[in-house]
Amino acid sequence: MAAYKGPIAFAGSPLDRADNIRADREALGALMNWKARLLKLDALMPDLDENGRLGWGSLADAPEDAELVFLGLDRSDGGERACFAAVPPQGDASPRMANPRLWALMANLDPGDLALYGGARSLIDWHARHRFCAQCGAGTRIAKGGWQRDCSECSAQHFPRTDPVTIMLAEYEGRLMLGRGKGWPEGSFSALAGFVEPGETIEEAVAREVFEESGVRVRDVTYVASQPWPFPSQMMIGCHSYADDDALVIDETEMAEIRWFTRDEVAASLGGNGPFRAPPKHAIACNLMQWWLEKTA
Amino acid sequence: MAAYKGPIAFAGSPLDRADNIRADREALGALMNWKARLLKLDALMPDLDENGRLGWGSLADAPEDAELVFLGLDRSDGGERACFAAVPPQGDASPRMANPRLWALMANLDPGDLALYGGARSLIDWHARHRFCAQCGAGTRIAKGGWQRDCSECSAQHFPRTDPVTIMLAEYEGRLMLGRGKGWPEGSFSALAGFVEPGETIEEAVAREVFEESGVRVRDVTYVASQPWPFPSQMMIGCHSYADDDALVIDETEMAEIRWFTRDEVAASLGGNGPFRAPPKHAIACNLMQWWLEKTA
Repeated sequence: MAAYKGPIAFAGSPLDRADNIRADREALGALMNWKARLLKLDALMPDLDENGRLGWGSLADAPEDAELVFLGLDRSDGGERACFAAVPPQGDASPRMANPRLWALMANLDPGDLALYGGARSLIDWHARHRFCAQCGAGTRIAKGGWQRDCSECSAQHFPRTDPVTIMLAEYEGRLMLGRGKGWPEGSFSALAGFVEPGETIEEAVAREVFEESGVRVRDVTYVASQPWPFPSQMMIGCHSYADDDALVIDETEMAEIRWFTRDEVAASLGGNGPFRAPPKHAIACNLMQWWLEKTA
Repeated sequence: MAAYKGPIAFAGSPLDRADNIRADREALGALMNWKARLLKLDALMPDLDENGRLGWGSLADAPEDAELVFLGLDRSDGGERACFAAVPPQGDASPRMANPRLWALMANLDPGDLALYGGARSLIDWHARHRFCAQCGAGTRIAKGGWQRDCSECSAQHFPRTDPVTIMLAEYEGRLMLGRGKGWPEGSFSALAGFVEPGETIEEAVAREVFEESGVRVRDVTYVASQPWPFPSQMMIGCHSYADDDALVIDETEMAEIRWFTRDEVAASLGGNGPFRAPPKHAIACNLMQWWLEKTA
């Protein structure tokens, strides 16, 4: 049983992260020239060009005091151009989720553009929400091309955050457990998911989350695929597991419904004509279901 | 090729995390009674009892103003006792690494105790280094039994951090790539490793890290095992990959040496009589090498 090999949304950025340049002030300074490109954004929203591609300007377009994040080197046109994004001037009160307008923009975006935008978004959103030192409360300064923030008071170094989240299929006698979260539209079902906590393996996190939300014990957890998810900065770890039983005890604080679906029902729903509304095609839950259909074909 | 099935250090905590209790002030308060246990710690070091097990006291042992973290429920003796740990009164200037005395203590610790200690350590160390709001700089208060901190100024919520790190074997014609980091003792080799960055899949992070450090391109990345690593709070994602070539271009800012070792050399070194000093047995790198020896047996 091979892991999923198909394309994953938000993966496959065309940029070379060129991490050796981040800590090299001289090299980084030399790259901030007239050839350098600045990702066009309206706060965190992408500003597309007339071809529906990500829009780019020059560093001169950034506000005078903007914090600039070095995204990497673009060699797609044969040359080598440094790509940057500016941190929004004001932090928001909470991590920004996707909105319907963004979903519509992303639906038709080139896969490489989508990956580049997602990575940039996670990074600048982290800066916007981490201008102060969590250790002492003083202000922090951007460092290493945006891959670090330094506290001038207590010398603490802070790094962009990536939160591992398990998202998992639980299978029982050929049926798949899917859930509808509280507040989701009627009929929408997806794989259960939850943050990995300190002190857990991936396999332990999968088993705990499924049990907490559904009351079902699972075993034989296997890894299927992973996905960066920029709302704000998760690393989705897609897994499969086998359930010991199908008797549900639903955690009503998190889930509105949990149900078991047959292979035919999952296939029909992914095709748009089944008993539930499948997750958006950008979500790894879709890849997991597709993988499961192929595995059980 | 199955993923690694053996025991993993720092995994397998005996506690039920009982996450439903965290947000329930009344239930949490009711558990903070004379039966509740407080993990005995000297700052972040475990304070073992006369049997070499983790030492426990009562909540009365905590300083009056201590922040208490709810670790979970212990049902090992048939009852149900709530377990807590106190956040150290003063934050440290940097994430705390393991030291030789701790390695000696951990070497003989019961596996369940080790997992419990590791999870508790990650959590209280996070609190000690996150007393202020990264968004506005104001002080934060512990919430949800220690699984959250709230800012009273800007209402931001902050959650314990778990940093995903890939650690990977790269194989070429039956030999394994292992490296010696800068500052490591002469002769010590382990698997290459690095943090997953925003915008990356696990597979992309593996390929990027190996290329950055060794100049070698790898493909066919597979997941082998994961491990929580409490120094301070990584989630190690152990993988295997195949290299396209064995010509090394070593990143001398990070690595002192990288070499290719045969199966016999790896087996001898894991047994203590080979050409390199293997990583400590608690490290997932050892599990990965063991898995590779079994796979190629």
